[in-house]
Amino acid sequence: MSVSDSAAFMHGLILFGHGARDPRWAEPFERLATLTRAGNAPVTLAYLELMTPSLGEAVTEQVSAGCTRITIVPVFFGRGAHLRRDLPALLDACRAAHPTIEIRLATAVGEEESVLQAIAAFCLRARDT
Amino acid sequence: MSVSDSAAFMHGLILFGHGARDPRWAEPFERLATLTRAGNAPVTLAYLELMTPSLGEAVTEQVSAGCTRITIVPVFFGRGAHLRRDLPALLDACRAAHPTIEIRLATAVGEEESVLQAIAAFCLRARDT
Repeated sequence: MSVSDSAAFMHGLILFGHGARDPRWAEPFERLATLTRAGNAPVTLAYLELMTPSLGEAVTEQVSAGCTRITIVPVFFGRGAHLRRDLPALLDACRAAHPTIEIRLATAVGEEESVLQAIAAFCLRARDT
Repeated sequence: MSVSDSAAFMHGLILFGHGARDPRWAEPFERLATLTRAGNAPVTLAYLELMTPSLGEAVTEQVSAGCTRITIVPVFFGRGAHLRRDLPALLDACRAAHPTIEIRLATAVGEEESVLQAIAAFCLRARDT
């Protein structure tokens, strides 16, 4: 397999968070990026507002790096207007801008039972210690 | 041990989230409350804004139920102004309103390595399946 063949199958991961004014807010997201980086598969943080890059910028960056498939994980607990209204519109724009790229949307982190179980276990440890 | 002795040791847990306009936003928090409820130790959801009860209302409710110690877990990923400025002020008010109650603040969920590892594992599964 040549380098170009390998690049043709590159699959990117984008961790999509809300964003905030305080740069320290992003620390858990940076830790998540570190935990998910391995090999040469790109992992990029992207934010809805107040921080950069935007989702569109992160997708364009991964496409430029050679990704032909990108999975976006919303790192949100609840699914309110940001995930039900804002994210679908952003996703439509990304897909329209890159029609040959497979852009997949995962369920939100807060919908994942294994994540909720880890949080619940932490809450009980916090109470009982 | 009498009923009043038992009540004297009741230790409540409050899961503190941001809140949102869409009531469906709270679903993961309701699931977390279910996962952490066991025995007769109260578990209450509380919100910074847009949803009720407030943190002060939740603390008052647990004190009325007989809790003498309350642990508050911030169910937030990042630590921006909400956790660095708003929550300490709310906490001060709760402690002033209930000076005989031990009100403890846990670290935020997004600072907990086991939670971040569960999220990272979910992200990688989402990408690789």
